[in-house]
Amino acid sequence: MSPTAGRVITCKAAVAWEAGKPLVIEEVEVAPPQATEVRVKIKFTALCHTDLHFWEAKGESPLFPRIFGHEAAGIVESVGEGVTELKEGDHVLPVFTGECKDCAHCKSEESNMCDILRINTERGVMLSDGNARFSKKGTPIYHFLGTSTFSEYTVVHSGCLAKIDPYAPLDKVCVLSCGISTGLGATLNVARPKKGSTVAVFGLGAVGLAAAEGARIAGASRIIGVDLIPSRFEEAKKFGVTEFVNPKDYDKPVQEVIAEMTNGGVDRSIECTGNIGCMISAFECVHDGWGVAVLVGVPHKDDSFKTKPINILNERTLKGTFFGNYKPRTDLPKVVDLYMKKKLEVEKFITHRVPFSEINKAFDCMVKGQSIRCIISLEE
Amino acid sequence: MSPTAGRVITCKAAVAWEAGKPLVIEEVEVAPPQATEVRVKIKFTALCHTDLHFWEAKGESPLFPRIFGHEAAGIVESVGEGVTELKEGDHVLPVFTGECKDCAHCKSEESNMCDILRINTERGVMLSDGNARFSKKGTPIYHFLGTSTFSEYTVVHSGCLAKIDPYAPLDKVCVLSCGISTGLGATLNVARPKKGSTVAVFGLGAVGLAAAEGARIAGASRIIGVDLIPSRFEEAKKFGVTEFVNPKDYDKPVQEVIAEMTNGGVDRSIECTGNIGCMISAFECVHDGWGVAVLVGVPHKDDSFKTKPINILNERTLKGTFFGNYKPRTDLPKVVDLYMKKKLEVEKFITHRVPFSEINKAFDCMVKGQSIRCIISLEE
Repeated sequence: MSPTAGRVITCKAAVAWEAGKPLVIEEVEVAPPQATEVRVKIKFTALCHTDLHFWEAKGESPLFPRIFGHEAAGIVESVGEGVTELKEGDHVLPVFTGECKDCAHCKSEESNMCDILRINTERGVMLSDGNARFSKKGTPIYHFLGTSTFSEYTVVHSGCLAKIDPYAPLDKVCVLSCGISTGLGATLNVARPKKGSTVAVFGLGAVGLAAAEGARIAGASRIIGVDLIPSRFEEAKKFGVTEFVNPKDYDKPVQEVIAEMTNGGVDRSIECTGNIGCMISAFECVHDGWGVAVLVGVPHKDDSFKTKPINILNERTLKGTFFGNYKPRTDLPKVVDLYMKKKLEVEKFITHRVPFSEINKAFDCMVKGQSIRCIISLEE
Repeated sequence: MSPTAGRVITCKAAVAWEAGKPLVIEEVEVAPPQATEVRVKIKFTALCHTDLHFWEAKGESPLFPRIFGHEAAGIVESVGEGVTELKEGDHVLPVFTGECKDCAHCKSEESNMCDILRINTERGVMLSDGNARFSKKGTPIYHFLGTSTFSEYTVVHSGCLAKIDPYAPLDKVCVLSCGISTGLGATLNVARPKKGSTVAVFGLGAVGLAAAEGARIAGASRIIGVDLIPSRFEEAKKFGVTEFVNPKDYDKPVQEVIAEMTNGGVDRSIECTGNIGCMISAFECVHDGWGVAVLVGVPHKDDSFKTKPINILNERTLKGTFFGNYKPRTDLPKVVDLYMKKKLEVEKFITHRVPFSEINKAFDCMVKGQSIRCIISLEE
């Protein structure tokens, strides 16, 4: 058993004291895991737009001080009562959404939206007792997405930890616990293009590039990237994108442009921007008879998806997905295996690396749109 | 070879001379089939709302005189040049949409929307030469949907004829060439409920009842029928409907009523009314995580399908279908087999029978909403 098991650990964490203000590396106390919980030593974490969004706290109910971070990899330090599927030393990916394996969603083959452990952006405490496990000199520090990986140690519900191959390099596979799997799964699990298919991907950020990577793995013959930023195309080629469409270059709707390029429409499309106009275009650009459009991006809550019913009746399919339909505990280990078998190329997504002490640089990079993924090393 | 092969046949047909006026049984001339065509002796025909709609010609470009009818069964009298898959004596169902077996749609496993022979309500002539095969004293009489089954003999493109088991009773299986297969296939081929599923069916006309019959065959545990006419429930029970919801009985949207009845939503829904509000309700009443809604009914062309994107993103699926996704030549013989094996109960759909001479009674019955299907016998 770990010498720290059952004790409070004092370690470094990057604390967000206020919305939009630089994180401060602080010494914090991390309480031991309670029943169903696991304490994890975080080795590497990345930064995702969701961290940025809740750190900026624009239009959200702000919860500060808070420890952000949800794309990461680490090693189990100790487990709480009743945790049997994980033990000290296991390599894990903490995930922002969980899998209880017992609710209707977990029991359904088709859903990954666990009733108990589904993503909750509002909650800043642990589910079991409503308390935070982080504190500084007695002041509680809120959790984020149940993961809070911007800390050397964190406490996570055991249902939100995927146990992975211990030989997988944590400085690479840490990016698989959110955005990359979201895009990849949208293509491989939901759109399911056949070999030789045509695929359109809307939005060439990390999620969209991962969707393109999925299409590349599936053997798509044409992958059409749609984005407003022309400079993204060069990078996107590495992810299998063969053609680029910038909606700004045309006077007509982009769905018409794509239909003309593909003799009536693509076989599959994946929408990764969350822009409502893109969502509609992504649906209307798939071929009648067999086309499938998959929506990934999250739009503004007041937006409305609108289309002529004939677009649906002509045998098109519209599907939404959450976290690429991956069940975190059951399926993420297989995504890691896909990387280990050299089918999924994770390195392409990692454009920057910084030591933990320079975590604010990762935020700068993302705000400026310079990085796909910036790895923050907690070993340095 | 039939003694009439290659010759004009004079026979009885029910001609619509004007929009909305009773059909007139006339002696008409039916020319021999040209290349790729087949002349069929119609034994039994039924009447479908599409016949009624184009006969009334409200808001449609009227094409008269015309011979309506597209739900029928008959026997091949003779075939035109190049027709190899059918011969004199074969039992067939003429279908309002075809299968060339050569276009992208026919080659796709997923589509039945043949590029060449897809439904065309505007065309009143044969595809090969742009002429009608029907005439009366030199005046051409227009075709309808390429089938025109309100005639003792008709000429049909060979791609629009399904060759069926010669032991199948034509006075029953004639109803399988349009509405019944449309509803049945929407459930069995597109919604695909698993055994024990909950299914909602919007609209309990012939198509909706066939969708319910599909759910019954699939082993659904609950089939919720939604209709504004309470008297339809009693009849619907025969088709497996276990519960009835009349939206008029509630102050809240019917999707909320169904979600409350089913702990969050049904597993599958099938929309068979074409009312845009019903289409939206049918989508929003399926369970998040795994629910699939299938749209069958054709709404007004100016309608717009609208929903909050979160309803899609929460892993719901929306699909449209045309003719139950059945490929007419490949799949309809299997639907007939389903009846022959006593899995599909066709008799329940047949509520009325009239001799050909009383065909206008069938129209009356349908206008008054008294019949599910009225069989018109051309043997009498």
